[in-house]
Amino acid sequence: MATIIPDSHKDLLEKPIYATVTTVMPDGQPQSTVVWFDYDGEFVRFNSARGRQKDKNLAANPRVTFMIMEAPFRWIEVRGMVEVITEEGAVDHIESLSRKYTGQGYYGAFNSRTTPEQETRVMYKIRPTKVTTTG
Amino acid sequence: MATIIPDSHKDLLEKPIYATVTTVMPDGQPQSTVVWFDYDGEFVRFNSARGRQKDKNLAANPRVTFMIMEAPFRWIEVRGMVEVITEEGAVDHIESLSRKYTGQGYYGAFNSRTTPEQETRVMYKIRPTKVTTTG
Repeated sequence: MATIIPDSHKDLLEKPIYATVTTVMPDGQPQSTVVWFDYDGEFVRFNSARGRQKDKNLAANPRVTFMIMEAPFRWIEVRGMVEVITEEGAVDHIESLSRKYTGQGYYGAFNSRTTPEQETRVMYKIRPTKVTTTG
Repeated sequence: MATIIPDSHKDLLEKPIYATVTTVMPDGQPQSTVVWFDYDGEFVRFNSARGRQKDKNLAANPRVTFMIMEAPFRWIEVRGMVEVITEEGAVDHIESLSRKYTGQGYYGAFNSRTTPEQETRVMYKIRPTKVTTTG
């Protein structure tokens, strides 16, 4: 399964490109937001905080889909299932994502309004199950 | 309901920004693709061809969500229901979208591989039911 991401589009999972991540609301409506993410070679990973809508949706339904678009006609869709939802390492992970996307740390730097004590960081690890590419 | 799109983000529905549109597969998995779209003041509209996955998903389940991102931290999420699925005016609509996004017509110009006779164009009109904005 590690090879499910085609070599032709692996760079889109490495670059600091914002992804549209979609989970499913309790009533079946797709819910989309824009997120930072990374790929550890096995899981696509993103980071949120306990109690947000995505967190609630994924606790109830593991189905999640990423759209990562570099140019209008070059993109990769990654569908998968959340396999791990964990607070362990989640603060380190958001710091790593912040450096990847902004060039600076998260708490006290990019995010100067919130401290780690004011929210519970959560890391979501998604196993890709189906991938489509264009371009 | 015409005012559900806030004035602060109405420009994102007018500009030639590519949208990530998400429908729901029969098994409940979100399916995302990148599309051209426009907004007629009441409906968000996009255009596809009969028999494609989105066409099949929307025939079975009207729930659809758009993510329109201008910059990483300025975006609008539009959730809604497909209210009209029609072939009437669908070729004119794809021609109009093509001019908006590419500056040229669709058949015989931007798309020089397919003729209108080789596919059945379909226009989807989505009534927004919930909107969230950032930035």
